[in-house]
Amino acid sequence: MTARTGRPTLAVVGATGAVGSVMLQILSQHADIWGEIRLIASPRSAGRKLSVRGEEVEVVALDEQALSGVDVAMFDVPDEVALQWAPVAAARGAVVVDNSGAFQMDPEVPLVVPEVNPHAARVRPRGIIANPHCTTLSMIVPLGALHAEFGLSELVVSSYQAVSGAGRAGIDTLRQQLSLVAGTELGTSPGDVRRAVGDKTGPFPEPVALNVVPWAGSLREDGWSSEEMKIRDESRKILGLPRLRVAVTCVRVPVVTAHSLTVHARFEDEVTVDRARDILATAPGVVLFDDPAAGEFPTPADVVGTDPTWVGRVRRCLDDPTALELFVCGDNLRKGSALNTAQIAELVAAEWAAS
Amino acid sequence: MTARTGRPTLAVVGATGAVGSVMLQILSQHADIWGEIRLIASPRSAGRKLSVRGEEVEVVALDEQALSGVDVAMFDVPDEVALQWAPVAAARGAVVVDNSGAFQMDPEVPLVVPEVNPHAARVRPRGIIANPHCTTLSMIVPLGALHAEFGLSELVVSSYQAVSGAGRAGIDTLRQQLSLVAGTELGTSPGDVRRAVGDKTGPFPEPVALNVVPWAGSLREDGWSSEEMKIRDESRKILGLPRLRVAVTCVRVPVVTAHSLTVHARFEDEVTVDRARDILATAPGVVLFDDPAAGEFPTPADVVGTDPTWVGRVRRCLDDPTALELFVCGDNLRKGSALNTAQIAELVAAEWAAS
Repeated sequence: MTARTGRPTLAVVGATGAVGSVMLQILSQHADIWGEIRLIASPRSAGRKLSVRGEEVEVVALDEQALSGVDVAMFDVPDEVALQWAPVAAARGAVVVDNSGAFQMDPEVPLVVPEVNPHAARVRPRGIIANPHCTTLSMIVPLGALHAEFGLSELVVSSYQAVSGAGRAGIDTLRQQLSLVAGTELGTSPGDVRRAVGDKTGPFPEPVALNVVPWAGSLREDGWSSEEMKIRDESRKILGLPRLRVAVTCVRVPVVTAHSLTVHARFEDEVTVDRARDILATAPGVVLFDDPAAGEFPTPADVVGTDPTWVGRVRRCLDDPTALELFVCGDNLRKGSALNTAQIAELVAAEWAAS
Repeated sequence: MTARTGRPTLAVVGATGAVGSVMLQILSQHADIWGEIRLIASPRSAGRKLSVRGEEVEVVALDEQALSGVDVAMFDVPDEVALQWAPVAAARGAVVVDNSGAFQMDPEVPLVVPEVNPHAARVRPRGIIANPHCTTLSMIVPLGALHAEFGLSELVVSSYQAVSGAGRAGIDTLRQQLSLVAGTELGTSPGDVRRAVGDKTGPFPEPVALNVVPWAGSLREDGWSSEEMKIRDESRKILGLPRLRVAVTCVRVPVVTAHSLTVHARFEDEVTVDRARDILATAPGVVLFDDPAAGEFPTPADVVGTDPTWVGRVRRCLDDPTALELFVCGDNLRKGSALNTAQIAELVAAEWAAS
């Protein structure tokens, strides 16, 4: 690392992508703690200029030179690019905060949510810190707060995942399908939506307009999807509960942005709704929005574009005083990826400044 | 009742409604076991002619005379109409099969799903049998089959409920909202969908296009919705498990017809996926559609307009050998209301013929 005078140098690797764009927005909105901000992308994007902190910055191509003299590097690139280049950046002295799937379950790479396990960011034998998957991030902050008070023993989770979790292609596919079904009588006879959509299913295995699709990710053992396994494995790692019981079913819904999840959370001891509400109302990064009598519960239409995780429908299980029911909703492009990555980078910068 | 010669007389009360229309379709499709089929509706619909079994039948107004000489009466009318008239029909000798919410939890009224608890239909001290709520009916047949083998001890359920569960107004509302959002860039910034939809939310508390809404029914105690309580109470009653642990969160999704549910089902003893699949593959009224490697899992787009309950994503919980994960999907207008009502009426007719 450089000397501790001045400010740390930040690299944004993958600066021209969809998440990279949100990273630059967030860097422009947050307190400016950085010295140089270097924008890095694939060679074909080199030379483009992007705006960050109100200045135009020229994008440079990803190579060893570009990663020299960097203190903190935020990576948002495909897994194989991260696997190749994150260790190069780390070897040259940077702390890498990686938003790919390459390192999330590496035992030598911490998986960090600053509101939940900030301490974990300090132990990084490979010089790499991983950002969790967007679906995990859409629920883990309120669960971390409740766990700190009550001690979590089991999660049963069902997701209502937005199409932007599958990237720009997911959004385009839903919009194209909506144009095909709007103004029709579709959705009332077997296969009518499928026939109207034809082969325009994009990154999804089935039509997603006027439909819900119980699948996300790739097939893992015993019928589980990769996305379901990630939610289980990452929740255990972030919460430091390697034997936490976690059951998950992932379902795609025709929403553009903001993942929702129902959560049945069982704790070591009896819980009360009043105490749970107190915790959620004061937890950093959480908005408690829960007054059904006044029509208040979170929905993606309200939550999209916002930073916190919204929680509503807080109830104690009628048949089990140790369990709570929740409906949580978070923007999968903000806290779900770019925001949490930036928050981790800021944690590392604070440590850098203090060391 | 009339003498057991000939065939029983059936009355369809509420014949002109949306569910009544499906009842008449089903009566025309099923084996013809009925003598007279009398169509009854409110006085303003009297005189209309409707087709059933290929014949035009004139609708008569609901009164005591119309309910005389009836052996079995299928009611699909508002709760208050059912409360008034079902006892009148029963007092005049009919067995009433009621599809309203008026009698479902009456301890003197059985709640019947012919594949699960047909025996319960025989004990009806008030002469009334209730049809369960559509959301319960969209999952209970496969759960009954699994319970018979493994012994159910707990359910954690999340719903993905179609707008037609809120009737014709629900369908019209979604279609109107889809016309407003299709072809736009909506769904990416806070409140943009809400602003586009304005006050056109119909029977729902929030926009349902490009959104999911974690609310169905009316507010009950401690933040629970009436729909969530129904799923718990009805599952217990149908399965004969008055202390079954049931946790539910109900969520409305932008699907026209067919309710979906994720189910985490825990049993008394260890389960195997192979045995569960055998049971589901042979259970009456169930289609096992579960091969993710081949892209096979049920979605509303496939299930709408069909009779069975479709089951996919069958997995054993990785952390609990007594629990299964399922994704189930059923047409809320067929098995969810008209079909199950007709099946109960057919059970009663068979009993009538044998007595």
